[in-house]
Amino acid sequence: MNRVFFWMVCIGVPFSVLGSFYLSSTLMFIVYSLTIVALSAYIGRATESLAIVTGPRLGGLLNATFGNAVELIISIFALQAGLVNVVLASLTGSVIGNLLLVAGLSFFVGGLRFKRQTFNVHDARHHSGLLIFAVLVAFVIPEIFSQQVSEETTYTMSIAISIVLIVFYALALIFRLVTHRGVYSQPGDEPEEEETPEWSARKATIILGLTTAAVAYISEQLVHTLEDVARTFGWSELFIGIILVAIIGNAAEHASAVLMAYKNRMNVAIEIALGSTIQIAMFVVPLLVFLSFLIGQPMALVFTIPELIAMIVSIFLVISVTNDGDTNWFEGALLLGAYIILAIGFYFL
Amino acid sequence: MNRVFFWMVCIGVPFSVLGSFYLSSTLMFIVYSLTIVALSAYIGRATESLAIVTGPRLGGLLNATFGNAVELIISIFALQAGLVNVVLASLTGSVIGNLLLVAGLSFFVGGLRFKRQTFNVHDARHHSGLLIFAVLVAFVIPEIFSQQVSEETTYTMSIAISIVLIVFYALALIFRLVTHRGVYSQPGDEPEEEETPEWSARKATIILGLTTAAVAYISEQLVHTLEDVARTFGWSELFIGIILVAIIGNAAEHASAVLMAYKNRMNVAIEIALGSTIQIAMFVVPLLVFLSFLIGQPMALVFTIPELIAMIVSIFLVISVTNDGDTNWFEGALLLGAYIILAIGFYFL
Amino acid sequence: MNRVFFWMVCIGVPFSVLGSFYLSSTLMFIVYSLTIVALSAYIGRATESLAIVTGPRLGGLLNATFGNAVELIISIFALQAGLVNVVLASLTGSVIGNLLLVAGLSFFVGGLRFKRQTFNVHDARHHSGLLIFAVLVAFVIPEIFSQQVSEETTYTMSIAISIVLIVFYALALIFRLVTHRGVYSQPGDEPEEEETPEWSARKATIILGLTTAAVAYISEQLVHTLEDVARTFGWSELFIGIILVAIIGNAAEHASAVLMAYKNRMNVAIEIALGSTIQIAMFVVPLLVFLSFLIGQPMALVFTIPELIAMIVSIFLVISVTNDGDTNWFEGALLLGAYIILAIGFYFL
Repeated sequence: MNRVFFWMVCIGVPFSVLGSFYLSSTLMFIVYSLTIVALSAYIGRATESLAIVTGPRLGGLLNATFGNAVELIISIFALQAGLVNVVLASLTGSVIGNLLLVAGLSFFVGGLRFKRQTFNVHDARHHSGLLIFAVLVAFVIPEIFSQQVSEETTYTMSIAISIVLIVFYALALIFRLVTHRGVYSQPGDEPEEEETPEWSARKATIILGLTTAAVAYISEQLVHTLEDVARTFGWSELFIGIILVAIIGNAAEHASAVLMAYKNRMNVAIEIALGSTIQIAMFVVPLLVFLSFLIGQPMALVFTIPELIAMIVSIFLVISVTNDGDTNWFEGALLLGAYIILAIGFYFL
Repeated sequence: MNRVFFWMVCIGVPFSVLGSFYLSSTLMFIVYSLTIVALSAYIGRATESLAIVTGPRLGGLLNATFGNAVELIISIFALQAGLVNVVLASLTGSVIGNLLLVAGLSFFVGGLRFKRQTFNVHDARHHSGLLIFAVLVAFVIPEIFSQQVSEETTYTMSIAISIVLIVFYALALIFRLVTHRGVYSQPGDEPEEEETPEWSARKATIILGLTTAAVAYISEQLVHTLEDVARTFGWSELFIGIILVAIIGNAAEHASAVLMAYKNRMNVAIEIALGSTIQIAMFVVPLLVFLSFLIGQPMALVFTIPELIAMIVSIFLVISVTNDGDTNWFEGALLLGAYIILAIGFYFL
Repeated sequence: MNRVFFWMVCIGVPFSVLGSFYLSSTLMFIVYSLTIVALSAYIGRATESLAIVTGPRLGGLLNATFGNAVELIISIFALQAGLVNVVLASLTGSVIGNLLLVAGLSFFVGGLRFKRQTFNVHDARHHSGLLIFAVLVAFVIPEIFSQQVSEETTYTMSIAISIVLIVFYALALIFRLVTHRGVYSQPGDEPEEEETPEWSARKATIILGLTTAAVAYISEQLVHTLEDVARTFGWSELFIGIILVAIIGNAAEHASAVLMAYKNRMNVAIEIALGSTIQIAMFVVPLLVFLSFLIGQPMALVFTIPELIAMIVSIFLVISVTNDGDTNWFEGALLLGAYIILAIGFYFL
């Protein structure tokens, strides 16, 4: 299987660079998608090696960071083009995609192999608190309060709240990686048998960086074909922004989280799915708010009501499912079901 | 006591059939109510026998199914009469009635006898997830999104989401009764001493069927007297739909759940109260959406804002109370208190 | 340190009484604040002595009651002046102040000294249920339902729901102090070594009463200076009502809770922060609704949307943080962060 992905990458990447000049959008859409899948397999293997060397938290953080770098880059391009609403939509899509699709698929696939999968319940609750903090407090407040103030005030409020978010994202990292590293570990956190990583930490990081860069490039190309594909299939722009871009933009998280869950390394899978969501909400979103003012295309921290509601209900469902430190195929399916319902909603909106 | 109920049934049922031709609505209202109480006692005993034979989950499911069959039949009659809003109101009433009144009364009555009552915390969390999935995701999304789309699109969205709900209800049954049967059982789940059921499984099912049919018939008669009773006492139609119809329509669940709690068989009580709610939300509601289109009286999956808020706050309170697998009289009282507050709200609406 | 506070009280109290005739508002604002801090230290010590004698629950309840007496008195004066909106705003401020600022600061300060602090998880869940009951059910329902009914009906609904709230507050006290006293205690609830209280129960209660009275008097004076201070610094009235008045009005809770957390007596700290919030929501608010009709300045139980949302998100965050019976500096910081975000919102509103 690794051999297949190897050749898919060897053929797919140059083809993705050159092919766009000659072939139709719909055809290239398929080429891009397959190449991203193959590249994502490498990202998954690199993450796995790193997680063995660095532990699940740092490994998950690295995976989330490389994965979200793609979204950050795409969003900056979109901001420069003045597509503020598209940026907020694709960030929403990234949040619900990570929470429901990435977590759901990994719980489901892992659950098909194992009756019950357990993970560190303290980590899950730490994530729950941050999700509520970021989405329920920091995203809801400007939404509600902005309805009664001027646009100028909304911008000031957005920047102030963005600063709070980034400061607390930094504090959360200090908490988990410095002051309370290992304090909340529980038996069964580490794999029973000492595994040897496939690649060294250095090699894995380099491969992670290179494949992420390739995914970023191809994702960007792919985004450009979406308009044509959408027209061909009759999909709305919102549906593309929230559902399609998010699925593709989170390919790296998908591949890694599902692979980890399949190997019953649920702490890494959770870290990727929830940690990536938290990084989007507490780091990427506020950073983009700052950048939007530097670029001169101001973006307020104000989502639309459907976007906000979609994020809120996703968070409550994920917290309900992960709160006991135990998952199974049905809990994974339930998250996927919620994703389908949200996709139906955005499809018709 | 059983003897009293026996004679109440023997007199009440024929009297309910014949009396409606001769007596005033308010008088018949009292006859119907007493007969339903007596019949419900039989339903409770049949459920108890079944729960001993089949285990708490299947026993609770059977009770919920027979109980909700009544509501389904009444709703189909109401749909045919074009009373779409009444159907949605009585389904709302059924959800909050099961969550707050049935669960509240059984926790309260059980708690008067036992200091603390425990139940399977995994089952409670499984129910929590489904309640959030059904109400917070599947009911909220069409509500929010329908405000921005045409009526036609709302109907299509309603049918699509109804399909998802029914599929996941089926998956939930497969999960609990097939793939994960007994996986999440915990010590104390089964009664300490081997109880012998009062009736055989076959006899209990027949009695359950017959009494449920009688309750259904009398409930329907009773619904017709409600308009007169309401005029006599000055109650609004919404109050009748959400509060009165729901109390009567859930008589079977009430009787069984309270009886089970009184006998400290909390797993069955929880299964009846929460399982019945989930069956309403994930099976009866979507089924009625489908039937409404067949009947030609299309019903969208769109509740009013007060109905939706009432269901949402009920769910959060019930999850908060049941999440630790432990109840007492005060937690039961708290659910009843929330029901009183909602009843006050709907009374004045 | 105790000696410093002793002299601050000896000088500050008479100065607060006399100084207001001669000095500028901004100067007196500083005098009042410092005196309240010094008095609060006495309240903290008195609470600590009481908690050792009476146990954490009764000690916490006494502290909350004396603390909230201040708010009740200030609110009655404001009602008489017809400032209904200011009363609701300062009650909102008291709820979010206790939940986020008092709890947050005590978790944070305690967490700087101890890696992990644990407390009785049953008590925390009991509080969670009451918070959801009071705010999510009893405050949300009149808000949502009042939009569709007349003002007269809203008043009737408010009184009815207020009666329910007070009855259930009484039931909650009966539950915790009578029927289930000690039923939910867990190992580690009581301090390991038998501490001797600094003051006897009688002396502590007298000191608590006297200092609370002095704080009440000075708080009232301070409230009068706020208008000038606000004009000097350019703050909005809402910001003053919700943020400043609440910080000062909760000085007693602050001092006691932080001191208790610093001594790792988390059960008392939780009891003060959450118990005080519950007392505000379930006793002070409904009592003020009743009094408002007696005074002839009717106040409906209807908060503004921003106020209600602020309370709801605070509750979900606090429940998420306390639900596992374990806190650390980061969880405290997270609550403070949420308070900062809400303060930003109300500042710009």
